[in-house]
Amino acid sequence: MSEIHTRDAFLGGKLHLLQPKKGYRAGVDPVLLAATVAATAGDRVLDLGCGVGAAALCLGARVPGLVLTGVERQPLYADLAQRNGGSTFEVVTADIVDLPLHIRERQFDHVLANPPYYKRSDSRAAHDADRETALGEETPLADWIKIAAKRLAPKGYAHFIHRVERLPEILTEMGKRLGSIEVLPLSPRTGRMPELVIVRGRKNGRGAFRLHTPLILHEGSRHEKDADTYVPRVKAVLRDGAALTF
Amino acid sequence: MSEIHTRDAFLGGKLHLLQPKKGYRAGVDPVLLAATVAATAGDRVLDLGCGVGAAALCLGARVPGLVLTGVERQPLYADLAQRNGGSTFEVVTADIVDLPLHIRERQFDHVLANPPYYKRSDSRAAHDADRETALGEETPLADWIKIAAKRLAPKGYAHFIHRVERLPEILTEMGKRLGSIEVLPLSPRTGRMPELVIVRGRKNGRGAFRLHTPLILHEGSRHEKDADTYVPRVKAVLRDGAALTF
Repeated sequence: MSEIHTRDAFLGGKLHLLQPKKGYRAGVDPVLLAATVAATAGDRVLDLGCGVGAAALCLGARVPGLVLTGVERQPLYADLAQRNGGSTFEVVTADIVDLPLHIRERQFDHVLANPPYYKRSDSRAAHDADRETALGEETPLADWIKIAAKRLAPKGYAHFIHRVERLPEILTEMGKRLGSIEVLPLSPRTGRMPELVIVRGRKNGRGAFRLHTPLILHEGSRHEKDADTYVPRVKAVLRDGAALTF
Repeated sequence: MSEIHTRDAFLGGKLHLLQPKKGYRAGVDPVLLAATVAATAGDRVLDLGCGVGAAALCLGARVPGLVLTGVERQPLYADLAQRNGGSTFEVVTADIVDLPLHIRERQFDHVLANPPYYKRSDSRAAHDADRETALGEETPLADWIKIAAKRLAPKGYAHFIHRVERLPEILTEMGKRLGSIEVLPLSPRTGRMPELVIVRGRKNGRGAFRLHTPLILHEGSRHEKDADTYVPRVKAVLRDGAALTF
């Protein structure tokens, strides 16, 4: 472990990720996103804006035999992603709006994205410049969805996690390009409104839109500091690397 | 009661509605929709596609002093709506896409709509021709939303109830014209996915999109035939005319 990085355990130690000590650090969101992806051996998976590789590598830890590719604009994160994934993870340092030809020529069975959550105009910039790039939205969310849809193979799935406030935009853009759209809202605890949504859409999908019952993340009705209060279904994902099907 | 009509009690007998014996008959949906409208005395309310007046008149039964207007294309239903509402309910026989000038010149504090649920192309036509007009979608849902938004006074609210499958379209269209959009999903019972959504949007609203925790309609985990299994909060709406705030 270097002084500017930490090496953190994910999935109960099944996976370790180098992350910058300061700056954007992967939380549970990419782990939950990866858990919802019903990939099978041989599937080609693209993680757009992969950071240090949390979503792609969590998926790879659960499902063996995937062909994993990540695209990350910031060299610091791309470098760590490559070190985290080793030879089984192809990391491309590029802006998603300017993908290299060898990515644009390929199709993927699954595209994952955990885009920046805040519009720069709506939020104060984070102190750390890299963290700001990871959290602040330079590329419009609509472009993320458009790019994800373009890279999907026929019948392939796009998987997004984002703040619930952005659900209308996500549905509008996905509705133009994908079908069989399903939403899993994530609520912090019982009686609280969902704050995040996982949204899945399928290329050439013809199924009706489905809104699932929210997944409650924590037990109890209020936050208990430092306590591991995740509900069993979420604990199984975070500690045992289980799938989260919906 | 004539042979072709029935006179049915709503809100535990606070309201009685003449309805055609055959054809489209109001269920709980317009009652729930009306219960979510935070109107106050003096507010101008427009019910688009009002049928026999269930939504507007349920609202009027709960909130005194409203100025209630309904628009209904089918003369049979418009006539019953007028008889149901009497002098306190202005019923206009017109297609919502071709509103008379005296409606187009006015603004409303609340617009309610319980549009037809099924696209004609997706569903078999109902046997009864009037029922088919009430259930089948001739006017695109996007037009309903556009017309509702146009008729709203500044800061006025549009209230829609529809099948969850149509939520993406509703959010896309409302997103162009209204803000402060909030969704209340309605689930038949615990563990079942929501089948209906109530969607509210505000003219000139600037609030973030909010997705509420689903309202569970029935107790228990499966349907019990003929039993009144509504949860207390829903019973209070249907039997006592209570408000349903979200």
